[in-house]
Amino acid sequence: MSDHLVAGIEPPYCTVVFTSRLREDPSGYAETAARMQELVRQVPGFLGYESARTPGGLGITVGYFRDEEAVAAWRRNLEHQEAQRRGRAEWYEEYSVHVGRVERSHSFVRE
Amino acid sequence: MSDHLVAGIEPPYCTVVFTSRLREDPSGYAETAARMQELVRQVPGFLGYESARTPGGLGITVGYFRDEEAVAAWRRNLEHQEAQRRGRAEWYEEYSVHVGRVERSHSFVRE
Repeated sequence: MSDHLVAGIEPPYCTVVFTSRLREDPSGYAETAARMQELVRQVPGFLGYESARTPGGLGITVGYFRDEEAVAAWRRNLEHQEAQRRGRAEWYEEYSVHVGRVERSHSFVRE
Repeated sequence: MSDHLVAGIEPPYCTVVFTSRLREDPSGYAETAARMQELVRQVPGFLGYESARTPGGLGITVGYFRDEEAVAAWRRNLEHQEAQRRGRAEWYEEYSVHVGRVERSHSFVRE
């Protein structure tokens, strides 16, 4: 899990919103999630991610990428594809993926 | 907090990704958050939202809207604007807002 907000990236860029509910006993999930968080950093055009999970509830991860090509490169990654396959077979009750193009953003940081 | 994934909406649509870290004692936050979740349902073109918060960590809420006009209607709502003002004054350490246009999405539900 990242505990930092992604800040200071200028539009346009892409967001990949991944929302999920895990099964009750997702053995092996945490290790693979940590590996994916390491692996995605190697994708050219990857800008950062944010992740939150309500205990026993929804998880939401937002990945930030420079453009659609960077999103596609991550989608094509074979180790990522294998993790997705295991996710459907073993870990997730359900998930959704929404790929958006951002033209406008703003942020606030307390002084 | 919503504990359901938003499902079955066809692109194109807009996502509003709101990521935040709360201050240590956000008195009054929960009531206002609940009120906003009620209020946003009245916005024409609002399609749903998902929310997750890691205890002591990041919160991520994703709002789904039919189009930019629906996003703008929510942004113009005066009670929402007042809640944002209180959020900056009282509740948030930091936050970011990313408005994206979604052309592609997919989902998985376990049989």
